[in-house]
Amino acid sequence: MTQDSLIIAGKTYSSRLLVGSGKYVDLAQTKAATEASGADIITVAIRRVNIGQDPNAPSLLDVVPQSRYTILPNTAGCYNADDAIYTLQLGRELLGGQNLVKLEVLGDEKTLFPNMPETLKAAEILVKDGFEVMVYCSDDPIQAKMLEDMGCVAIMPLASLIGSGMGILNPWNLSLIIEQTQVPVIVDAGVGTASDAAIAMELGCDGVLMNSAIAHARDPVLMAQAMKWGVQAGRAAHLAGRMNKKFAGIASSPLTGLVV
Amino acid sequence: MTQDSLIIAGKTYSSRLLVGSGKYVDLAQTKAATEASGADIITVAIRRVNIGQDPNAPSLLDVVPQSRYTILPNTAGCYNADDAIYTLQLGRELLGGQNLVKLEVLGDEKTLFPNMPETLKAAEILVKDGFEVMVYCSDDPIQAKMLEDMGCVAIMPLASLIGSGMGILNPWNLSLIIEQTQVPVIVDAGVGTASDAAIAMELGCDGVLMNSAIAHARDPVLMAQAMKWGVQAGRAAHLAGRMNKKFAGIASSPLTGLVV
Amino acid sequence: MTQDSLIIAGKTYSSRLLVGSGKYVDLAQTKAATEASGADIITVAIRRVNIGQDPNAPSLLDVVPQSRYTILPNTAGCYNADDAIYTLQLGRELLGGQNLVKLEVLGDEKTLFPNMPETLKAAEILVKDGFEVMVYCSDDPIQAKMLEDMGCVAIMPLASLIGSGMGILNPWNLSLIIEQTQVPVIVDAGVGTASDAAIAMELGCDGVLMNSAIAHARDPVLMAQAMKWGVQAGRAAHLAGRMNKKFAGIASSPLTGLVV
Amino acid sequence: MTQDSLIIAGKTYSSRLLVGSGKYVDLAQTKAATEASGADIITVAIRRVNIGQDPNAPSLLDVVPQSRYTILPNTAGCYNADDAIYTLQLGRELLGGQNLVKLEVLGDEKTLFPNMPETLKAAEILVKDGFEVMVYCSDDPIQAKMLEDMGCVAIMPLASLIGSGMGILNPWNLSLIIEQTQVPVIVDAGVGTASDAAIAMELGCDGVLMNSAIAHARDPVLMAQAMKWGVQAGRAAHLAGRMNKKFAGIASSPLTGLVV
Repeated sequence: MTQDSLIIAGKTYSSRLLVGSGKYVDLAQTKAATEASGADIITVAIRRVNIGQDPNAPSLLDVVPQSRYTILPNTAGCYNADDAIYTLQLGRELLGGQNLVKLEVLGDEKTLFPNMPETLKAAEILVKDGFEVMVYCSDDPIQAKMLEDMGCVAIMPLASLIGSGMGILNPWNLSLIIEQTQVPVIVDAGVGTASDAAIAMELGCDGVLMNSAIAHARDPVLMAQAMKWGVQAGRAAHLAGRMNKKFAGIASSPLTGLVV
Repeated sequence: MTQDSLIIAGKTYSSRLLVGSGKYVDLAQTKAATEASGADIITVAIRRVNIGQDPNAPSLLDVVPQSRYTILPNTAGCYNADDAIYTLQLGRELLGGQNLVKLEVLGDEKTLFPNMPETLKAAEILVKDGFEVMVYCSDDPIQAKMLEDMGCVAIMPLASLIGSGMGILNPWNLSLIIEQTQVPVIVDAGVGTASDAAIAMELGCDGVLMNSAIAHARDPVLMAQAMKWGVQAGRAAHLAGRMNKKFAGIASSPLTGLVV
Repeated sequence: MTQDSLIIAGKTYSSRLLVGSGKYVDLAQTKAATEASGADIITVAIRRVNIGQDPNAPSLLDVVPQSRYTILPNTAGCYNADDAIYTLQLGRELLGGQNLVKLEVLGDEKTLFPNMPETLKAAEILVKDGFEVMVYCSDDPIQAKMLEDMGCVAIMPLASLIGSGMGILNPWNLSLIIEQTQVPVIVDAGVGTASDAAIAMELGCDGVLMNSAIAHARDPVLMAQAMKWGVQAGRAAHLAGRMNKKFAGIASSPLTGLVV
Repeated sequence: MTQDSLIIAGKTYSSRLLVGSGKYVDLAQTKAATEASGADIITVAIRRVNIGQDPNAPSLLDVVPQSRYTILPNTAGCYNADDAIYTLQLGRELLGGQNLVKLEVLGDEKTLFPNMPETLKAAEILVKDGFEVMVYCSDDPIQAKMLEDMGCVAIMPLASLIGSGMGILNPWNLSLIIEQTQVPVIVDAGVGTASDAAIAMELGCDGVLMNSAIAHARDPVLMAQAMKWGVQAGRAAHLAGRMNKKFAGIASSPLTGLVV
């Protein structure tokens, strides 16, 4: 398992768990939960979290330093391509020219389901502008392929609605995406507990991104640890090749040859 | 998490994963997978596996020594109370008077579903005879309670048929048992992959016992590691208290107060 | 489909939907819903419903007459074999010596899960006493077989807890019972809506018994009609032989030979 | 229930089951199954089925006459907007100027999943050209809303892949669409058996369209009847308002006031 690393846009990461940085009660909790998660990549909602936009306020980077983590700017709160593109340009600037970003263009405030036409539009422009685009999307395999063909560096389908904790509602669509995709597939949104993360990895996902499931647990730091193990468990089970399911309940050893 | 130990019949175990010792290709694999699992308690089918019955054959205890593991004799292959009782008496003798045993009385060879009337009968006699009985049973909460009331030291409901790898077919019945039971509840049979183990622990089980899921994986040693993580993940998630599921997909942060 | 009848203890019934008579707001609703259901067999909780025990109170038989329906006395509210046996002896007497009865011995008031040891005990005594016993039971295939072997005339496993409306929680166990049983298998308890009834029938059940799902619907009479259709739909689908599920999504017709 | 009709583009239909006309072994079976289904609307793949394109071959309209059925031309086999538009123009011409059509633009031959960008493009052009567009789509609520806002007269999300018979894989997305949509929502694709149809209707769909589930059953005519009942059952259950699910298994009647 030592060489089983996640590679995104040519860079290697040791953890397959990516975490958000919002929704915590304070920066101390952010720091503790982030460390417990073992994550290398931390997403930051540029429109909501201070990483230098306000030089007089505490910065997330004080507790999640760039020296240790890859900070991944995201476009949470953007409902059209233009806002998303502008937000990521700002993020790139704040992070010293970093091209790796996470694009999400939302459809409405109620569901936070992706707006796929605007996502496709923004992705195309961003890729041409040199961004390495990790992209939040629906679990539609056809549009996921379009995003990959455009040059996105990671396909990030939802498992269920952002913040819902409902788990993987349609593993079949996810499987179609995993099967066809050459770049990493990272489940983004919907994971609610450790077994959800394990299931995503067992299906063959390359990683899982979450925020609410950790931040909204009763004990976020312990849940971060649980998620770390959940992702490791699912990844190892995927690589180990699970036993076949068999309904008939056949006795596992023949009755001939009993010792007693 | 350091003090989160499993206590059965007054004895403390650090791992909540219990593993079988059958179905491996050879003793070397048994040893490697058992070690990778991190398990403290190893079950042994007294009617099938040599732990001294045949002094001239290799013994399981050579690779799974009693100095390191708790060897738990079980009655796999027994279809009535008498056979089960006789088998456990033999197991006790082979293990130097150890009272801790696992009782399973099976209903038929096709399903290996427990025969509950014979299980109840055997459990009563064994408890009176001084055994500490961990008991394989159906997920019937009423009969599980009867077994607990008799003095069984662990209630071990099936998740699905032995050797089926179907996972937890009825989490509701399992929940009823967990809610009412004062001694450890350990899912026994049916786990197929790491997420199944995690789910069992998230539901509130105290442990999981498995054999086929490890031994019949493509890479049993790696799967044993996956299962170790799966149990840890599920236990930590249970203790951490998962977020509530909420379908409506409410935006996690208010749109007021955006930084950008 | 015309000859597709349900035969219990040698008697033929045209409907595969059996309904309870409790939980309605009044006898007028009982009458209307019962008629809409198309049921032939109506169960009556002898301990709760008046069918002559109190000659001065309105009788269920006024609206659900024996001339049109088979009245099936049941032992709802009984928690041991003795009470159940006594109750059914009373029922037989009230119904002019009718031997067809439904036995249910409950485990506790909270879950209403069957008490299987007491059920087995009562069934054995009742069968010997000449009763034709339709028996409510868990979905344990081994104990279901014991009940059949004793001479019960219908095996009636729960789909989920009485009054829960949770649907069929473990279709696998139900399938095992259906496969092995020579007398009718009738799902009893847990159906919540029409698709639940259809699923039970598609699995191969011979009938479905329900009460709460009809009586506790917003419009019981309309739900009774829905259940009638649901049972018919599921039965017809079972007989028609459903298409195989195939995940790969193969195009249904070859692209060669397009008309346009 | 008498006035519970399906209204599409201002026209009223008595049946909520819509059926395809392909995949049958011959026209006699087409006729018998179509009649048994009770459907009013029959879809026809203009690129595959002869309804006059070839005046010398047998026409579907001989067994499914326009005097009795609404023939709904569809674009099965089209993978881009242009082909779909051309095909529906041909269909309109063949059907004497009928504007009601079903649009489906597929993403690839393996999955037959919709190509949503091309679907949106085609729908916009067709609506402007005076067509009344019923549109096959993914279960993405945001894009479903775009199609409704364009003026499509029915939204037809897949339950699962065309021809898969997998049932409703994501009832949650379907619910979001149902909740927000003012025109009829008709599940199109994926239904495999009668209970699937019932579930779709219970969720609040206005209708169900299927083809393989009937044509590929062992007995298509009987399955057509089953589907008719399944849709009726689900619709009635939806209108009747099902009981709430309650896990705790509370006894339905108080134990006080027992008659016996």
